[in-house]
Amino acid sequence: MNGLRKTVESYWSAAEARDWAAFASTLGEDVLYDLPQTRERIHGKEKYVQFNREYPGDWHIRVQRIVADGDQVVTWVHAVVGLEEMYAITFFTGDAEGRITAITDFWPEAYEPPPGREHLVARY
Amino acid sequence: MNGLRKTVESYWSAAEARDWAAFASTLGEDVLYDLPQTRERIHGKEKYVQFNREYPGDWHIRVQRIVADGDQVVTWVHAVVGLEEMYAITFFTGDAEGRITAITDFWPEAYEPPPGREHLVARY
Repeated sequence: MNGLRKTVESYWSAAEARDWAAFASTLGEDVLYDLPQTRERIHGKEKYVQFNREYPGDWHIRVQRIVADGDQVVTWVHAVVGLEEMYAITFFTGDAEGRITAITDFWPEAYEPPPGREHLVARY
Repeated sequence: MNGLRKTVESYWSAAEARDWAAFASTLGEDVLYDLPQTRERIHGKEKYVQFNREYPGDWHIRVQRIVADGDQVVTWVHAVVGLEEMYAITFFTGDAEGRITAITDFWPEAYEPPPGREHLVARY
């Protein structure tokens, strides 16, 4: 099933274009969105589209990497919100029609490394 | 190339077993390890094995999901270190022999959600 890769590409390009009809068409009715870091969940296409439409800030998304394996796809995207840059890793699961049924999103944040490994690492 | 998926499965099982010879055999000589959150990099198999061997704490790893696409593999692992639980998302790139040449590791941390989306989300 190559369908889910294409669906996920459309998902990100529609989000970037704020084309919410196209964005909604990538999603199953009962899509489940999960943010493990905040333990938040959103259930259903309507609420999930609204969540994205209402998301504050002038955000822009660029897909850095996409890894597709049947009905599983992972993306690594670079996001810019004003002057802030971050990235997200997103796991997608699809149904037989190539629609997205589950999304798990991670937003890793910068932190200072613990001491004790300076002899092995270089910082950039 | 199904080889990299198998290599990555061996990588995690060898790490969990502290079998550093088996772990090293999954890696290319010039493997590049990248931690974008701390902007740290480790270059070369020897240093990277040492980094893992010296990593403090009684950590245990369980692979939750693996997504393989040719010479690209992504894993989502659950890690337990003493009483602390966390997860890592890791992007692997392989060479023609199915050895790992690049690893990018993300360790997302818990945070409190921003206000303004309570009408759409459920917390768990």
